[in-house]
Amino acid sequence: MSPIRVTVWNEGVHETRDASVQKLYPEGIHGAVAAGIKENLGDDVEVRTATLADPEHGLTQEVIDSTDVLTWWGHAAHGEVSDEVVERVHKAVLGGMGLIVMHSAHFSKIFIKLMGTTCTLDWRSEHDRELIWTVAPGHPIAQGIPHPLIIPEDEMYGELFDVPQPDELIFISSFSGGEVFRSGATWRRGRGRVFYFRPGDQEYPTYHQKEIRQVLANGVRWAAPTDAERVLPTVSRRPTGWYETGEQLSSTDPRLAQS
Amino acid sequence: MSPIRVTVWNEGVHETRDASVQKLYPEGIHGAVAAGIKENLGDDVEVRTATLADPEHGLTQEVIDSTDVLTWWGHAAHGEVSDEVVERVHKAVLGGMGLIVMHSAHFSKIFIKLMGTTCTLDWRSEHDRELIWTVAPGHPIAQGIPHPLIIPEDEMYGELFDVPQPDELIFISSFSGGEVFRSGATWRRGRGRVFYFRPGDQEYPTYHQKEIRQVLANGVRWAAPTDAERVLPTVSRRPTGWYETGEQLSSTDPRLAQS
Amino acid sequence: MSPIRVTVWNEGVHETRDASVQKLYPEGIHGAVAAGIKENLGDDVEVRTATLADPEHGLTQEVIDSTDVLTWWGHAAHGEVSDEVVERVHKAVLGGMGLIVMHSAHFSKIFIKLMGTTCTLDWRSEHDRELIWTVAPGHPIAQGIPHPLIIPEDEMYGELFDVPQPDELIFISSFSGGEVFRSGATWRRGRGRVFYFRPGDQEYPTYHQKEIRQVLANGVRWAAPTDAERVLPTVSRRPTGWYETGEQLSSTDPRLAQS
Amino acid sequence: MSPIRVTVWNEGVHETRDASVQKLYPEGIHGAVAAGIKENLGDDVEVRTATLADPEHGLTQEVIDSTDVLTWWGHAAHGEVSDEVVERVHKAVLGGMGLIVMHSAHFSKIFIKLMGTTCTLDWRSEHDRELIWTVAPGHPIAQGIPHPLIIPEDEMYGELFDVPQPDELIFISSFSGGEVFRSGATWRRGRGRVFYFRPGDQEYPTYHQKEIRQVLANGVRWAAPTDAERVLPTVSRRPTGWYETGEQLSSTDPRLAQS
Repeated sequence: MSPIRVTVWNEGVHETRDASVQKLYPEGIHGAVAAGIKENLGDDVEVRTATLADPEHGLTQEVIDSTDVLTWWGHAAHGEVSDEVVERVHKAVLGGMGLIVMHSAHFSKIFIKLMGTTCTLDWRSEHDRELIWTVAPGHPIAQGIPHPLIIPEDEMYGELFDVPQPDELIFISSFSGGEVFRSGATWRRGRGRVFYFRPGDQEYPTYHQKEIRQVLANGVRWAAPTDAERVLPTVSRRPTGWYETGEQLSSTDPRLAQS
Repeated sequence: MSPIRVTVWNEGVHETRDASVQKLYPEGIHGAVAAGIKENLGDDVEVRTATLADPEHGLTQEVIDSTDVLTWWGHAAHGEVSDEVVERVHKAVLGGMGLIVMHSAHFSKIFIKLMGTTCTLDWRSEHDRELIWTVAPGHPIAQGIPHPLIIPEDEMYGELFDVPQPDELIFISSFSGGEVFRSGATWRRGRGRVFYFRPGDQEYPTYHQKEIRQVLANGVRWAAPTDAERVLPTVSRRPTGWYETGEQLSSTDPRLAQS
Repeated sequence: MSPIRVTVWNEGVHETRDASVQKLYPEGIHGAVAAGIKENLGDDVEVRTATLADPEHGLTQEVIDSTDVLTWWGHAAHGEVSDEVVERVHKAVLGGMGLIVMHSAHFSKIFIKLMGTTCTLDWRSEHDRELIWTVAPGHPIAQGIPHPLIIPEDEMYGELFDVPQPDELIFISSFSGGEVFRSGATWRRGRGRVFYFRPGDQEYPTYHQKEIRQVLANGVRWAAPTDAERVLPTVSRRPTGWYETGEQLSSTDPRLAQS
Repeated sequence: MSPIRVTVWNEGVHETRDASVQKLYPEGIHGAVAAGIKENLGDDVEVRTATLADPEHGLTQEVIDSTDVLTWWGHAAHGEVSDEVVERVHKAVLGGMGLIVMHSAHFSKIFIKLMGTTCTLDWRSEHDRELIWTVAPGHPIAQGIPHPLIIPEDEMYGELFDVPQPDELIFISSFSGGEVFRSGATWRRGRGRVFYFRPGDQEYPTYHQKEIRQVLANGVRWAAPTDAERVLPTVSRRPTGWYETGEQLSSTDPRLAQS
C-alpha cells in the first residue's frame, strides 16, 4: 500500500509574533503536528507542511491534488485565507480528501462551509485541566487512547458547540470548571471524511503530548480516502435504462461527472 | 386532542424497606414522577401509577393497551420483573408506545432488550454536583431547560455508557469528580420512541427538582405516539404489483400484519 | 397555542413564462402549496406567500422575523436570489425557524449553504411513476401517509444525492426506471429543523395530490420551533464558575449571545 | 499486520435437503461465501467455515475467541441455534468481534438480539431484478462497487425493514416490482461492528456473483476489530479521582471490567 500523503496546514501567525508561542512551538504548531503524525505512522505516511504566508497559502491545486489527508490549524487570521483556496479545499474534501480540523479552526472558513452552521462555542483560557472520555470504544480513532486522556492544562471549550449532530461522536471532554464539550467527532461530506479534534492551543504544549499525537495519527489513518480517484459528484441526466448497456460504471468513473 | 395517557411505573422496593427513601419520597418515586408530569402538562395528560408488587406489576395487557407513554424506574429488583411483562412492554414500544427510561433503569430488562447492548456504566454515590448541558437546543425535550441545569447533589454515572449511538443526543452531564455522561438521549425502535434520562437516585431528592420534572414532562410530550393505532411490524409476502389495486393500504392498516 | 406562521416561498419564474405550468398551476406553485398546507392544518396555521419578484423577494427581515416555518421552491433562477436574503434566511434557521425544501430547491443557495455539499443528483423528466416508501413509521412526518404513496407521473431524481447523511431518513422513492432516492429526510442546523421533500415538478400536477399536501403539512407541524424566541448561537467567553451565581440562564436567554 | 481471522457460519440446512440448492451451491453457501472473501482478500485473511450441524454449531468458545469477523447465514432453522451459542456470539460482538449478517439472517436470534426490534420485512421470491445503489460513496464497504450493482434475479425484500436507524446507510436496493430496501447498513454495538447485507438467497446464484463477493470482502475488512484485546464493558464503581493516580488505564485494560 502506498503511504498516506498528509499535508499539515498551519496559519502560522502566532509563531511569528508571540514569544510565548515561539518558545512552546519552535518549529511551529505545524512542526509539532507533523512530527506527531510521523512518530506514530512512520513509513505509512509522507508528511509535508504549508502555512498561510506561503504562495496560495502553500495549497496550490497541485499540492491539494497530491494530498490524501489535510490537517488544518488556524486562529488569528481565518479571514485572510483566500476564498479561492477554501473553494479548492472544499471541492477536494467532497471528492474524497480527508480533513482533520483542530481546535480553534472550528472558526475556519472551510469548517464553517462544510458544517453549514455558526460553529460557535464557549471558551476560557485559564489553565483548566481537561479530561477526554471515549464514548465510541472500538472506533479506529480511539484505538490505544487512555480513558480518560488527561491534559494537565489547556484552554476550555464549552457547549453549545453549534455544529450538525456528528455522524459519530467519539470523545467528550470535561474541564475543571465543569463545562463539557464534544471533543472528537466525525462527519462525512461528499466522498470525504472530516474529523474535528478539540485540544490544543498556541499557549499550551498540547501538541507535544504523546496521546494527543496518537489521536491525530489515528485520525489521519481513518480519514484517508479508500478510492484512488477523486470524484466530485455532479448532476447528471440519465436516460431510462442507462445502466442496462452491459457496461456498468464504477462508482468512481469520471463519466458520471458529465452533466 | 385527547390527553396523553401516561403510566408511571416504579419498582417501589426501596420505598418499602429504606427509611431514607421513605423520607425523601413519601409518595414513592412514582408519586414524585407522576406529580412532576402532571404539574407541567396539566389537562394534556392523564397519569396513573403502577409498581412491581401489583398483580402483573400493574402492567396488564389492558393497562398497556391504554398507555401512550410509559415511564420506568427500577434499581434493586430488575430480575423480579417477569419476562412476560417485559415482552408485552417490548411489543407495545415497537408498536408505537413511548417509553421514558430513568436513571438506574439503564439495567432494566426492557431497556437492555431494546438496546441490544450491556447498558453498563461507571458510578459513584458520593454527592457529586451534576451539571447538565444541552447539546441539542431547539429539541422539544430541551425546551425551557436552563443551560446548565444544576443538580446540587446526585449519584455519579460515568462513561462508558454501553448503548448504541443515540439517534439524538440532547444532554451531556459533567460531575464534580470530572466524569461525563450522555444524560439525555433518544432512540426509535419500531414505531416507538425511547428517551433515556439519567438523573435521579433514591437517595437524592432529584425528582422533586423543578427542572428535572420539566424534562420528564417534555419527554412525555415528545414520546407520545402520533398514530392512534398500535401496529407491530410483521413479515408479509407481497405479490408483484400488490399496491396497484387502487386500494392503497394506510401504513397502520392491520392487514399489513398478515404473514 | 398560537397558529404556526408559515411563509410559502416560490421562485415563480416558470408560471410567468411557460403555458404548461400556468395551466397546471394557475395560482402558482406557491398557491398550490399554500392551499395544501391550509387544507390540512386549518386554523393551526397562518399561511402567506412570497416570490422572487417581490421586493427583497418578499422575505424582508420583518417577514422572516414573523415566520415560524418557511417553505422553499425554486428551479430556474437560484442564482437570482440575493446573497443578503440567503444570509437572512440562514440566520433565521440557525436561530430556530423551520425550513421545508422542495424538489428542485435541492440546488437553492440556502440548502447548499446549510448542507455544505454539492447537493447534486441524477434526473430524468420522462413521466416515471414514483413510489414513496416510509422507512420511519411512527415519525410525525409519515403520519397517515400510505405505504407506498404512489405518484402516477413525476420527474425522476436518482442517487447519488450528495447531502450529509440525514439525521432521520423518512421516505425512500423508487421510479419506473429503477432508480431510488432518499425522498424525505431531516437535518437539524443550529436550533432549526430542515425537511427536504423530493416530489414535485413544474411540469406535473404533484402539488395538487392529496397525500403530497399532507406530507408537506406534516412537515410544517414538525419543523415549527418549540421556543418562542429566536436565538442565534454566538461565541462567549465564560469566566470560571459563571453558572454558579444562583441565576441560571435559560437556554434562550439573549445574554448568552454576548461575545 | 496479522491476517483477519474470518469464520463463515452457515445454517447448512437447505444444502442437505434441497436438490436445487445443492446444484447452485455444491460447496454449500458457506463454501461460496468463504471463497468469495478469500478471492478478494487473499493473504490478508484466514477463512474457516462452521455449520449448525457441527458440535456447538462449530462455534465453540475457542473458535469465537480466535475469530475477528464472523459472517452469518441462516433461514430455515433459526430456532435450532442454541441460546448458549447466541449468548457467546453476542458477548463477542460487544467485546469487539465484527459480524456480517446476510440476507435471511435478518431473522437470526443474534441479529434480533443486537437490534432490539422485530427485524421483519416484506418479501417475494419471483425472480425480481435487483439494483443496488450506493448512497455512501467513499465508505470502505462501497469501494470499487458499480453504481448500480445489478443482480439479474433475486428474492425481493421490501420495506418496512424494522431495524433501528442505521449508523451508516450504504446501499439502497430497488426491485423490478418497485419495492425498495435498505440493503447495506451498519450499526456499532459495544466495541463491535455489525454490517447487514441483503442480497442472496438459496434459490439464486447470488453468492457466485463477483461484485457481491467484493462487498462481503469489503465488509470483512471494515468490521475487523482495531484492538487486539476483546473487552466486554462492565459496570464499575469509581472512587473520586480514580484516574489521578498517574497510572491511566488503557481503554482496553481488563481491570476496567471489574465491578
